[in-house]
Amino acid sequence: MQRQNRAELQRCLDGLHPADIAYILEALPLEDRLVVWQRVKADRDGDILLEVSDAVRESLIADMDEGEILAAIEPLDSDELADLVEDLPPEVLPELMASLDPQQREQVQSALSYDEDQVGALMDFEMVTIREDVTLEVVLRYLRRFDELPEQTDKIFVINHDSVLTGVLPLKWLVVNSPDKSVGEVMARDVNTFLPTDDADDAAQAFERYDLISAPVVDGGGRLIGRLTIDVMVDRIREESESEALGRAGLRQEEDIFASVWASVRNRWSWLAINLVTAFLASRVIGLFQGSIEKLVVLATLMPIVASIGGSSGNQTIIKIVRAIATDQVGLNAIWRLWRKELGVAFFNGLIWGGVIGAVVALMYHDIPLGLVMTVAMVLEQMLAAVMGVGIPMLMLRLDRDPAMGSNIFLVFMTDSGGFFIFLGLASIFLLH
Amino acid sequence: MQRQNRAELQRCLDGLHPADIAYILEALPLEDRLVVWQRVKADRDGDILLEVSDAVRESLIADMDEGEILAAIEPLDSDELADLVEDLPPEVLPELMASLDPQQREQVQSALSYDEDQVGALMDFEMVTIREDVTLEVVLRYLRRFDELPEQTDKIFVINHDSVLTGVLPLKWLVVNSPDKSVGEVMARDVNTFLPTDDADDAAQAFERYDLISAPVVDGGGRLIGRLTIDVMVDRIREESESEALGRAGLRQEEDIFASVWASVRNRWSWLAINLVTAFLASRVIGLFQGSIEKLVVLATLMPIVASIGGSSGNQTIIKIVRAIATDQVGLNAIWRLWRKELGVAFFNGLIWGGVIGAVVALMYHDIPLGLVMTVAMVLEQMLAAVMGVGIPMLMLRLDRDPAMGSNIFLVFMTDSGGFFIFLGLASIFLLH
Repeated sequence: MQRQNRAELQRCLDGLHPADIAYILEALPLEDRLVVWQRVKADRDGDILLEVSDAVRESLIADMDEGEILAAIEPLDSDELADLVEDLPPEVLPELMASLDPQQREQVQSALSYDEDQVGALMDFEMVTIREDVTLEVVLRYLRRFDELPEQTDKIFVINHDSVLTGVLPLKWLVVNSPDKSVGEVMARDVNTFLPTDDADDAAQAFERYDLISAPVVDGGGRLIGRLTIDVMVDRIREESESEALGRAGLRQEEDIFASVWASVRNRWSWLAINLVTAFLASRVIGLFQGSIEKLVVLATLMPIVASIGGSSGNQTIIKIVRAIATDQVGLNAIWRLWRKELGVAFFNGLIWGGVIGAVVALMYHDIPLGLVMTVAMVLEQMLAAVMGVGIPMLMLRLDRDPAMGSNIFLVFMTDSGGFFIFLGLASIFLLH
Repeated sequence: MQRQNRAELQRCLDGLHPADIAYILEALPLEDRLVVWQRVKADRDGDILLEVSDAVRESLIADMDEGEILAAIEPLDSDELADLVEDLPPEVLPELMASLDPQQREQVQSALSYDEDQVGALMDFEMVTIREDVTLEVVLRYLRRFDELPEQTDKIFVINHDSVLTGVLPLKWLVVNSPDKSVGEVMARDVNTFLPTDDADDAAQAFERYDLISAPVVDGGGRLIGRLTIDVMVDRIREESESEALGRAGLRQEEDIFASVWASVRNRWSWLAINLVTAFLASRVIGLFQGSIEKLVVLATLMPIVASIGGSSGNQTIIKIVRAIATDQVGLNAIWRLWRKELGVAFFNGLIWGGVIGAVVALMYHDIPLGLVMTVAMVLEQMLAAVMGVGIPMLMLRLDRDPAMGSNIFLVFMTDSGGFFIFLGLASIFLLH
């Protein structure tokens, strides 16, 4: 690259928001990505590292030496540091921890002590707190001593002498009320609070449902220890839905789209291995009926149709049930009702489409019994798919596992082997004597 | 239900947030849902209707008479009304529009004039505006004349005499700066604004990327006409990811989980119909090789393995490409690079897993050539799946269609028929003389 181009790139990058630079870095192949990364002003490195995806972050950090890493993360807040720590090379950690003041160190350690699916791992510590016995006038004077308030501050937290949260004062209320009123008169006492051990997805749902912008995190004794903000929750909602989509397809983790061939092979191999085993087992069901297929080879042609339709409609059922579970819309008690309904849907769908394909088959091969077997097999396969579509996620739930993850592969195994068994079994009984 | 229980239900409902009631209504079967709905205080009906899903909203509105509907929606804002209008029975519309004042009517009509995927359909009209030549002291006095500020107000919009937006004043800045400063000195001039014709998903991405809470919507001349807020954007993000998940499984729309059997059959039938056609076409490929299968019936046992693995890995590729397209990470220019990479991944995966299954087959049937055919077929099928996994979403994109919707069914058709063709074709050439 020529010097002039580089200078221009530099100028262009300096004008961009860290989130935009992160986005550009993610969209570039590795070698171009590192060229751009080296041109980014060092004091913005930390913010950008926070914004990029895990896979891209790894590739950027691998390109930095110890000094650069420490310089990049030095300006970050404790909660941001905690987000990055696990991606940093272990050799920089001692120096990093030594550079923090005791309060920061405690905050980083506290954030690290929670599981990444817990509120504690997502909270920040940038809070403005006031007492309830002062007037709004005093609050306004106090706030004017700040250069600026933390990002996403829509409310100020009201605490007592023991740091116990007694209410919140939205900025909106602070500015519309008379300055003579006391905080206690104006503040909201009925507050959505979270515990650091609460599930992060539940917190995200609460933010969504009650249209929250920030919310206090308190310990078991009601003492204020941190804050959740909508921007973190939005990222969480996005990640949750993406990891669901990826998990459904058996991708273990977010994958840098320009990752090397080997990294991609590793990310995908386990799913293919499982799939190979299930496909092999399903093929053994066909093996059981080799004799029937030898006598009536058209069975080999028709059996994949039965299996394929079963997989498709079972998948529709699973998606619906998993979504209903995720939004807590069905407990285990609704299962019978759902099963009845899905069996009803399956029966009619099987009858309609099984009837159509049965008629086509009967006409094509001038063989009415074959058409009838096809129709009956389709109805039974649809009902099997419905039972599995409701049952598999419910079983996963009862076993305390993520109902989305991997339920699809188990479904396809059941609908494939079940479909082959039903169709070839019926054909062997009724068509071959 | 006994009178006492009803009174208790009533008390319990009166204490809940509209979003919580909406959630309960969604989780109840129809008859119970209507019992609860009738106990909800009439003045909250409108808020609850806004919160429930489309399918559930329909079921609730169907239970209300004209007077109840008009009473429920009367307290709503124009943008909220616009959200509900399309679900209302047409006979209430004339009376509803007559009850609005001219400004409201114009706002409802303006919101209705935009496509639901456009910013204009999502904006609200509750804005607080100020001029830039006044001091913050004056702004604070002005705000104290309000009883309360609109929900999600984190900033006040600064406009000139022609209603052109000149900046925004975050409440955070209003409270930390000296009251003697003028709005013009303090306000941000570099503002994220949206046009009403902008794509709603792009706006949602901007909210996510720049951590926005509210943002002004301006017309072509820069005049302020409305406002977007994070709560609406969060709903949008959630809906987008859900409709992607549903679309992938061929469900046309959100479905009330307790919808009747017939409603569900209708929602799902088209996908099954398409799937039936593609499965039938793929089975015709097998039909071409009936002669080979008759001679070597084990082919019928093994062919679904090849097709199944191809479908699985093609699906992994498609998910990755669709996500990359959705976040604008790949343009059409990156396609060759992606193709090269995915072909590399496919080749190695095919070689590894094709080698494994080939060895198993060779041992099981004491037939080394059969094992070799299996391995070669797996490699070719993997590469076909890679080409299709990148090619299908790219083709959809070039045809200006949603790359997620339906690409899966086309993929499975290609990997099924391709897999059968490759495996049975190779077997016919090399194993049968």
